Amino acid sequence: MLTTNPFDDDKLREECGIFGVAQAEGASALVALGLHALQHRGQEAAGITSFDGQHFHTHRAMGHVAGNFDRDEIIRALAGTMACGHVRYSTTGETALRNVQPLYADLASGGFAVAHNGNISNAMKLRRELVRRGSIFQSTSDTETIIHLVATSHYRTLLDRFIDALRQVEGAYSLICMTPEGMIACRDPLGIRPLVMGRLDKSVIFASETVALDVVGATFEREVEPGELVTVQNGEVKSIRPFATVSPRPCIFEHVYFSRPDSIVAGESVYSVRKAIGAELAIESPVDADLVIPVPDSGVPAAIGYAQQSGIPFELGIIRSHYVGRTFIQPGDKVRHLGVKLKHNANRALIEGKRIILIDDSIVRGTTSLKIVQMMRDAGAAEVHMRIASPPTRHSCFYGVDTPERTKLLAAQHDVAGMREFIHADSLAFVSIGGLYKALGEARRADIHPQYCDACFTGDYPTRLTDQDELAPADQFSLLAEKTA
Amino acid sequence: MLTTNPFDDDKLREECGIFGVAQAEGASALVALGLHALQHRGQEAAGITSFDGQHFHTHRAMGHVAGNFDRDEIIRALAGTMACGHVRYSTTGETALRNVQPLYADLASGGFAVAHNGNISNAMKLRRELVRRGSIFQSTSDTETIIHLVATSHYRTLLDRFIDALRQVEGAYSLICMTPEGMIACRDPLGIRPLVMGRLDKSVIFASETVALDVVGATFEREVEPGELVTVQNGEVKSIRPFATVSPRPCIFEHVYFSRPDSIVAGESVYSVRKAIGAELAIESPVDADLVIPVPDSGVPAAIGYAQQSGIPFELGIIRSHYVGRTFIQPGDKVRHLGVKLKHNANRALIEGKRIILIDDSIVRGTTSLKIVQMMRDAGAAEVHMRIASPPTRHSCFYGVDTPERTKLLAAQHDVAGMREFIHADSLAFVSIGGLYKALGEARRADIHPQYCDACFTGDYPTRLTDQDELAPADQFSLLAEKTA
Amino acid sequence: MLTTNPFDDDKLREECGIFGVAQAEGASALVALGLHALQHRGQEAAGITSFDGQHFHTHRAMGHVAGNFDRDEIIRALAGTMACGHVRYSTTGETALRNVQPLYADLASGGFAVAHNGNISNAMKLRRELVRRGSIFQSTSDTETIIHLVATSHYRTLLDRFIDALRQVEGAYSLICMTPEGMIACRDPLGIRPLVMGRLDKSVIFASETVALDVVGATFEREVEPGELVTVQNGEVKSIRPFATVSPRPCIFEHVYFSRPDSIVAGESVYSVRKAIGAELAIESPVDADLVIPVPDSGVPAAIGYAQQSGIPFELGIIRSHYVGRTFIQPGDKVRHLGVKLKHNANRALIEGKRIILIDDSIVRGTTSLKIVQMMRDAGAAEVHMRIASPPTRHSCFYGVDTPERTKLLAAQHDVAGMREFIHADSLAFVSIGGLYKALGEARRADIHPQYCDACFTGDYPTRLTDQDELAPADQFSLLAEKTA
Amino acid sequence: MLTTNPFDDDKLREECGIFGVAQAEGASALVALGLHALQHRGQEAAGITSFDGQHFHTHRAMGHVAGNFDRDEIIRALAGTMACGHVRYSTTGETALRNVQPLYADLASGGFAVAHNGNISNAMKLRRELVRRGSIFQSTSDTETIIHLVATSHYRTLLDRFIDALRQVEGAYSLICMTPEGMIACRDPLGIRPLVMGRLDKSVIFASETVALDVVGATFEREVEPGELVTVQNGEVKSIRPFATVSPRPCIFEHVYFSRPDSIVAGESVYSVRKAIGAELAIESPVDADLVIPVPDSGVPAAIGYAQQSGIPFELGIIRSHYVGRTFIQPGDKVRHLGVKLKHNANRALIEGKRIILIDDSIVRGTTSLKIVQMMRDAGAAEVHMRIASPPTRHSCFYGVDTPERTKLLAAQHDVAGMREFIHADSLAFVSIGGLYKALGEARRADIHPQYCDACFTGDYPTRLTDQDELAPADQFSLLAEKTA
Repeated sequence: MLTTNPFDDDKLREECGIFGVAQAEGASALVALGLHALQHRGQEAAGITSFDGQHFHTHRAMGHVAGNFDRDEIIRALAGTMACGHVRYSTTGETALRNVQPLYADLASGGFAVAHNGNISNAMKLRRELVRRGSIFQSTSDTETIIHLVATSHYRTLLDRFIDALRQVEGAYSLICMTPEGMIACRDPLGIRPLVMGRLDKSVIFASETVALDVVGATFEREVEPGELVTVQNGEVKSIRPFATVSPRPCIFEHVYFSRPDSIVAGESVYSVRKAIGAELAIESPVDADLVIPVPDSGVPAAIGYAQQSGIPFELGIIRSHYVGRTFIQPGDKVRHLGVKLKHNANRALIEGKRIILIDDSIVRGTTSLKIVQMMRDAGAAEVHMRIASPPTRHSCFYGVDTPERTKLLAAQHDVAGMREFIHADSLAFVSIGGLYKALGEARRADIHPQYCDACFTGDYPTRLTDQDELAPADQFSLLAEKTA
Repeated sequence: MLTTNPFDDDKLREECGIFGVAQAEGASALVALGLHALQHRGQEAAGITSFDGQHFHTHRAMGHVAGNFDRDEIIRALAGTMACGHVRYSTTGETALRNVQPLYADLASGGFAVAHNGNISNAMKLRRELVRRGSIFQSTSDTETIIHLVATSHYRTLLDRFIDALRQVEGAYSLICMTPEGMIACRDPLGIRPLVMGRLDKSVIFASETVALDVVGATFEREVEPGELVTVQNGEVKSIRPFATVSPRPCIFEHVYFSRPDSIVAGESVYSVRKAIGAELAIESPVDADLVIPVPDSGVPAAIGYAQQSGIPFELGIIRSHYVGRTFIQPGDKVRHLGVKLKHNANRALIEGKRIILIDDSIVRGTTSLKIVQMMRDAGAAEVHMRIASPPTRHSCFYGVDTPERTKLLAAQHDVAGMREFIHADSLAFVSIGGLYKALGEARRADIHPQYCDACFTGDYPTRLTDQDELAPADQFSLLAEKTA
Repeated sequence: MLTTNPFDDDKLREECGIFGVAQAEGASALVALGLHALQHRGQEAAGITSFDGQHFHTHRAMGHVAGNFDRDEIIRALAGTMACGHVRYSTTGETALRNVQPLYADLASGGFAVAHNGNISNAMKLRRELVRRGSIFQSTSDTETIIHLVATSHYRTLLDRFIDALRQVEGAYSLICMTPEGMIACRDPLGIRPLVMGRLDKSVIFASETVALDVVGATFEREVEPGELVTVQNGEVKSIRPFATVSPRPCIFEHVYFSRPDSIVAGESVYSVRKAIGAELAIESPVDADLVIPVPDSGVPAAIGYAQQSGIPFELGIIRSHYVGRTFIQPGDKVRHLGVKLKHNANRALIEGKRIILIDDSIVRGTTSLKIVQMMRDAGAAEVHMRIASPPTRHSCFYGVDTPERTKLLAAQHDVAGMREFIHADSLAFVSIGGLYKALGEARRADIHPQYCDACFTGDYPTRLTDQDELAPADQFSLLAEKTA
Repeated sequence: MLTTNPFDDDKLREECGIFGVAQAEGASALVALGLHALQHRGQEAAGITSFDGQHFHTHRAMGHVAGNFDRDEIIRALAGTMACGHVRYSTTGETALRNVQPLYADLASGGFAVAHNGNISNAMKLRRELVRRGSIFQSTSDTETIIHLVATSHYRTLLDRFIDALRQVEGAYSLICMTPEGMIACRDPLGIRPLVMGRLDKSVIFASETVALDVVGATFEREVEPGELVTVQNGEVKSIRPFATVSPRPCIFEHVYFSRPDSIVAGESVYSVRKAIGAELAIESPVDADLVIPVPDSGVPAAIGYAQQSGIPFELGIIRSHYVGRTFIQPGDKVRHLGVKLKHNANRALIEGKRIILIDDSIVRGTTSLKIVQMMRDAGAAEVHMRIASPPTRHSCFYGVDTPERTKLLAAQHDVAGMREFIHADSLAFVSIGGLYKALGEARRADIHPQYCDACFTGDYPTRLTDQDELAPADQFSLLAEKTA
């Protein structure tokens, strides 16, 4: 597996990023660039579908956008002025190419392509019913459920069929769809996963994050609103609101870790929010120390915030190898324990004899934190204090984020004192849920109608979890019988 | 494209070979061997599906069986005691892996896998109707139509649904299917494409040709009869005849070219039949000459028959390179005209000054015959007489054989005199349709109910050609909108 | 390993083929074609070197000519009007690319490229001396010895240095060399390995066999004579004879097996010679039987000769799969014994109950003969008589042919009766050494100065075997210390 | 080409890193780890040679260490308790595998392997003479010259021959050699390129940088001294000083850019030195501004130093994509101008309206600086001040560093004012040569015997430049006639 995300073994993972563009010459080249900028949202596979006025063209590949979607012949074959794409991180072992999005189907009304960020929480139940009525699924993806609901809907127009389908699904979905008539983008009523809209000359662009607009030189226009459905057809952009209105609850973890620091999410600079969380941490959990050291790279903004607030110097105490783009599989048993040093090395001359504050964005299993603390001690640190720029992660996400089973979440097994002991730090503190909301510019968490989905911290899920509730775990994959050898 | 079939640019091509085995340890290894023996029936792609009692496992690959299905990890992953496979030559430019068989679907009753040899002649019409009712096709294959008919059938048991589906399709089909309950093999009522049944200890085997039984050491039991459906379930073999009885019309071209000479088709040794056709040719169209020379390799048995009947010596006048396994793409424009010599070379010392009889199995476009005649003249042949071990090929096949458009068939454009002129031979003769039936052991062709499908020679098609009749050519692929980039 | 040579596990192997062309536009494209026609002389690796008037360009690759040297960008990069190439079968495990020829060196006089067919029988001794004086070898090839002898010669001109070098080497060498001044072709004084010369318009061509002239459309001019050195420079062809004259002894096995049947070797059609050997066999060792069956493909010409002489019908009793171009590595232990059937299948309908005569060109280890005889018996043959179109192979070759150690040669361990028993045939006979010479048009073998090198049959080696005599086997590779991982 | 070094198009490039280990089980696995830690010193190719007591084993590959030298079968094949390796960045277009080090030769005394960091400045002259005497070069590498000098030396022992060879070469060389007797490490008399020595239990390790000791868990012992030759043989380490003593002049650019920040070079922490340079810059060239922004990643330590000295906040104003491990080749002409944004994006929310100080380590061509300044302006920066943590780079390096021709060096064409204009900054300043020496702990540059080689800044080269002086550029590669197609 390729990875360049340092210490990434112990992070929650966003599962998808999506990008679509309508009314643009060379649409697929723009999509490739946009997906490249969203690569941090999914590194396992990528796909682009284009429409040239007559035919849909699709290319899917395992691996990164670079190396797959930067070849001229691929982009040329993805002809047309409308295109959408998807990067994906898979939750299960099922990595077959047929699960890579955009998904495509030939409907009676013509071609239909869908790129989906999120997770449908009643997909299993809907799938069972559709198969019973004769639908044949080609993937194990929850997204395909939406397509079959469209195909078998009794409404007449494609748009009505699509709305009919969405009204049956529960969970999180930001979608970019293409039909021969045009592009449809929409976001679930709670707006759990992000989706923004931009303009580049006459073209309309949809993307998971604003950085993907930046990379193609587009201007950010606005977010697609929770519960909104935007159509782009014959040069005209229309907004439809087919759902009953509810208070939105966008994912708070986008601010903590998923989104790139140079993105603007819900009107806030992610970098600034992370610095603010770091500053809150410094206020809530100060410590007398010599150096503030970020766990690279995701801990850097919070560490800068902590350092500025506390006045303790910010220093690079951990040096990341430039060359972790390719995972080095350590050869030979004798050297297997050398592990983490291949990616990072303590800056010993700096650390020796110092009391240090390590700043990281989150702790999931705790295994990597343990190694980093040890690395600091081996380099001669006098004291190692760990400060985390999010509350303890105690609950699984069912909305398109890869979380370990609860039993593997350190915070689900231990209180903070137990966690400190586990990672062998001299002290450990997390920002409070209140501090986190404060850094986001809220006075406090509105506990009745919280402003964000923070279920991973609080267990307060904003939707029903139909498949979770109805199915025993062993049943959940019983329909997915074919394995790819 | 890989090819080792000499002079193969000008042959009709069988599109598929199928092989299945039930009740065998390591079933998929046997299927790999069987498909290797059937490689001459399709070189573009291959696939195997196995069932291990719980899960279906599939592997598909472009290219040959060897190099793809002889790797231990592939075969190990194809676990189970029941497996079936398919080799394929594609008729259209559509070579996507998702068209490679066996096709697989998760039905409400469980997994369903199908390997198909033949062609459904009303597939387009059925497909349009199914899509209209909400079915989503994942391939452009006519075979998928059968699966959707099964999925949406109103009958209750899988077997009833399958028979319900078959009763709606027209054309040629030899099928091997797998369900969690067992294996089903069947052959269309006319028995157009072949299918045989064998035994290896307790295992039951189905295959397109007897050579595939030989290679795994199985004994030939019998042909699956036209219109017969054989089930293998819990160690029990049952025969069902769900169709009204009609006179069978198996494909006559299996004897002329498709089948391997060491196969037994319809009780006859293919090698002996081809020698008999050669002997008929010698009787019908004798010529005073010095040498009988086969066009390698498919003309060899008929040439031996011709030589033995005529008393003129059989000699290798054309030497085939051993190394045509990989097509040599000639580099540089200057040498592009050297073409055919890369595969074959005239045995000049033998031919010089001689009157020769060239024996080939068939002429399709005539382009290669032209080159071979010229090669013989360049080598100094005094006279070149061409004798063909089949009647002129005048009509397209719609039952699973790749035929050029009629306008490209030499015999559809010219009479025999015109063909002789085109290939620049001193004389040209084809075996008569009567002679062909005689070599097959029949007294004569029964013109009312012919014993074989000989439509490529006579234009006398045994079924309706619904898609051909209803659709203008431009419409035929209108549903297949997604191209793979 | 790739192989398309049926039953090739039990053959002697020619180690090399060479081809050169001077004064031709697109010289390297012609070399690629010529090497393709010589592919049977070496399948492991190939290389081409060209000279564009200023620079030498080289490309070497493991594997076949097709797939490596038929790509436009490769051929374009091999610019110039002079080029030579080499196909190679390796004798040892050492298959590193740096051993692939043509070998190249930057001498003080400019570039020097060499392609060599044969083997220097005192290379080890010469190499030790050169290394002692400071020469650094880059390959384990005996050919490199020649280059270092040229580089360190005390003569002034390149041609004098080259002749100086050749006068120090013993053994077999047909060489094609290139210098900035032109091309040099030469053949050792005994002419052990073949080399012919042809013309294509103004171009001069050298090749191991005439088939390579045929493929490029060149006319055969003459053999390069034993002991002759031919230079092509500024459009002028000169012949030099720098060695004392000795009676030539070209390799007799070229006629038996190595050369293609459509080649002309020493003025004789190889096909005709092989038929003549078959006819001699029929005279020397007749047998009352029903069918003459060749072991495909190398036994075919001798079988035709045997059949015509004896009047017993020639039939294809063994059918070779068209698709052995890629070796099928049999998956799974359960099916590993199925072996030879993947490549060949008995034509059971023909053989059953018949007394057959199997014709093969040679027996080396005997392992394959054993399998074929068994295959015939399994198919129901009443009697199996084996006839071999060469004398028993009893001795190793040290002149560029891959022979097993003597202990593995069946004929070195057993007399003919013992060999018959080993392969389980009803009878076994080899053509006599006299019969072989007769088929070659000689009255008899001239035992004092034999007309051919027949050391593999007689042990009568035409040169000293310095390295064999001086070095104990364990020493032979002691200088070759670096292994490629 | 792979690269993960941000903005790396405009950096000088270290050409090599070397690593050797003697007396260690699984030596090659340690070498692979060490080379991985030195990957920043050469990304184009890597090689490892091991010695198992009998045989040398070599594996070379284009590309990174990870992906090539982390496969078990490779490491297992590189058997033995002594091994050395090399990572390489090529200076010319010549990227053939035969140039990849370690180089190896079979000498009369046995095998000899060499890994070299540096460049021999009279290699061309020596090579011409060696070729004239009959030596045949296999690579275009200057390193091979050393091997031929050893091979043709008139001294008796290998060690004497090696010293004899080194006394004839001029320039920069840190070498790790292996013979059947043991390992030899040495450093040229000026110590231009680095080489350190460490211990891991009983093993002795040599490496270009201390980080490579860290990664294998070895302890740093000392530098190999300029002009010192260290032998490791039978468990014994000996030091020899075969050269006349001169004042050392190690490369100053190792501190500025080449070495990893966590390395200790010449007793100084690279990170601390870079921070000190940043602090000097702040003292020498202060500016009234709002933010200090590093050009990632190489500008970070100096930026921290500048910020701490000046009191202006350090902020991440440029966000680097995590996924630049694979270069994204932008598809389509329309988007080609988007360039640098794929790797970096301005943190617009932070920068808008601010006066910023950009800190980079050096300016070579200036093309990337121009783009970054523009990127900051596009993001709304009020003022952009550029500060460079080294003096202007005005001269080429001939000691193993890839420098553009002088005409492409911005500082060779312009004074600082002109450079400021070229990059469109509001102000531009470089640290002074005095400030640089001060940051390195020296009172001042000793102009008569400078403490470092700083020729790239001053043009004061520490050795003769024989090849540069004698050969006109067109001649320099005339001996290297063979191109690899």
